[in-house]
Amino acid sequence: MAVMKVHGSPFSTSTQRVLACLYEKDVEFQFVNVDMGAGQHKSESFLSLNATFEQGDLKLFESRAITQYIAQEYSDKGTQLLLPESNKTMALLQLWKEVEAHQFNPPSTKLVFELHYKPLFGMATDTAAVEENEAAVAKVLDVYEARLAESKYLAGDHFTLVDLHHLPNAHYLMRSSAKKLFDSRPHVSAWVADITARPAWSKVLDLQKY
Amino acid sequence: MAVMKVHGSPFSTSTQRVLACLYEKDVEFQFVNVDMGAGQHKSESFLSLNATFEQGDLKLFESRAITQYIAQEYSDKGTQLLLPESNKTMALLQLWKEVEAHQFNPPSTKLVFELHYKPLFGMATDTAAVEENEAAVAKVLDVYEARLAESKYLAGDHFTLVDLHHLPNAHYLMRSSAKKLFDSRPHVSAWVADITARPAWSKVLDLQKY
Repeated sequence: MAVMKVHGSPFSTSTQRVLACLYEKDVEFQFVNVDMGAGQHKSESFLSLNATFEQGDLKLFESRAITQYIAQEYSDKGTQLLLPESNKTMALLQLWKEVEAHQFNPPSTKLVFELHYKPLFGMATDTAAVEENEAAVAKVLDVYEARLAESKYLAGDHFTLVDLHHLPNAHYLMRSSAKKLFDSRPHVSAWVADITARPAWSKVLDLQKY
Repeated sequence: MAVMKVHGSPFSTSTQRVLACLYEKDVEFQFVNVDMGAGQHKSESFLSLNATFEQGDLKLFESRAITQYIAQEYSDKGTQLLLPESNKTMALLQLWKEVEAHQFNPPSTKLVFELHYKPLFGMATDTAAVEENEAAVAKVLDVYEARLAESKYLAGDHFTLVDLHHLPNAHYLMRSSAKKLFDSRPHVSAWVADITARPAWSKVLDLQKY
């Protein structure tokens, strides 16, 4: 099978999602660091810079499509059951995957930019935007709190792709003032501590050191 | 197997996506029309009102998760290959599914509200919003035009869930001034004519008559 190549940036949350999956599956791949150009990091768009994936003549973009392909194609390698075996559990995974992509990701990406990157680059945080997006994230976390009272992970008893998809933004929010949104919800808090402690996620963060 | 129940509105694009899939698969289900309450139809949110799905103890929301469950669970019924068999084609389906959900759906939903529903309810169309969202849809349709020059449908040679997911908004846009965005792109134009002519889609529209 042809070698897998990932083009992206270790600072893009989209790239981080793909890398976390590759490290979980413990498969070999080649990482091509895309230079975003001077000043590019000062706009919100770089955060969601699409990772691209190549394997022979297969070319993919959209991080959640790439993780699903890797988890399916390498189901027998590394961490097992990133995609569940039963149709019903798979349906739950797809459901929470949509919630992450449409409800959690947009406001949390805005918060990561306002609370993490803007201060880092000496830019002023927009407090109205923080308030609005914290309210949106809080609403989703209320739903997660109820769900995680029923099962250890979002799709069931196992860590799956849907938990993994939350890693980049959850990581940055936990290092910002938005941490309170997680801390005030015990099941969400235990879940985020569990998933961010995974060795595969540490490997993704290590890439930022170069 | 327990009977499938869908709660939603025949006017919600999210419900329409689920119904189109059920009609394609030619499976029995029970439709529960949710009364949205007086005046509710005058806000954009009703367009994306979540359909909910029940089958025994399985409860799902998020239309794209529901269609995937139905297509998988009833793979041998009705229209075949709504989900492709090979991992590679499945990866392409997932890729275009993400593009639909994140790039096509948000601006096209705004256009449907501005161009179709607002005039219907005697509300004034926001021309700046129309311009901005037409530009966003045009950008996605340029990508689709290149893709559809290579294959008849988005994921390959067969009609799949990813084409189906476009039906509700594509249908309404084709009946508005945004039709020009489709007409000016020959492959997109042939594709939208093809998918909106499917008998399953007519059955969805028939539900609006009651």
